[in-house]
Amino acid sequence: MRVLYVHSYTFEYRVRQPATRVRDEDYVPEMALENVLVVFVAVEEGDDDVKLARAVEDMADVASRVSAGAVLLYPYAHLSNRLAPLTVARDLFNRLYALARERIGLDVRKAPFGYYKEFKLHCIGHPLAELSRTF
Amino acid sequence: MRVLYVHSYTFEYRVRQPATRVRDEDYVPEMALENVLVVFVAVEEGDDDVKLARAVEDMADVASRVSAGAVLLYPYAHLSNRLAPLTVARDLFNRLYALARERIGLDVRKAPFGYYKEFKLHCIGHPLAELSRTF
Repeated sequence: MRVLYVHSYTFEYRVRQPATRVRDEDYVPEMALENVLVVFVAVEEGDDDVKLARAVEDMADVASRVSAGAVLLYPYAHLSNRLAPLTVARDLFNRLYALARERIGLDVRKAPFGYYKEFKLHCIGHPLAELSRTF
Repeated sequence: MRVLYVHSYTFEYRVRQPATRVRDEDYVPEMALENVLVVFVAVEEGDDDVKLARAVEDMADVASRVSAGAVLLYPYAHLSNRLAPLTVARDLFNRLYALARERIGLDVRKAPFGYYKEFKLHCIGHPLAELSRTF
């Protein structure tokens, strides 16, 4: 799993159209958040529950260190060349979301998997504002 | 070389502070562009002039396909786990910029290498708005 964190003053997205056959069916079509840790996620071949758990621990740690008020999981295939098959990616992404909601004591949201989305990001630019990880 | 393209309605950056010992000395501290293809670039071990040339051809092709009015090269180490050493990365990034200015018939700019930067990005979200490449 490849993850890119961007601590943002504000983040907004709006769904434009389906991108893949495999996608979330129920989803929030648009959202706006403030002081948010945006977590761009690419689910890779071989990802499993152990990696999900490690990713959530790290996410909680980073959110705490930057004093984010919310966490947004955002599916982002562009971070990897060795992506998991779509159904696996969608399911693991949603398990990551469920686990993050259980374990992180903040407002945790997700953007829908499998759609083209317009988004506005305002990265804060402090030394911990952008971090990347491989789990 | 890993590249992430984001076709954006608008993109702005503002330098906040030095991030690395090796960095650009002369730079534009802030910039705002419209209808811009933002090209996030991670220079990797083994990158050379052949890859630079291929990257610039691809950049010109994508900019043309999305009808961007400008191209912004933005150094982005977070796209790779196998980065080139800093001096090599800075120098290749700047050669990429010089080559892109020669070969792409658009307003081509760059953000400074080696600084923490605040930025605002408004991704359009059409099917070609986000693309990634490995050269």
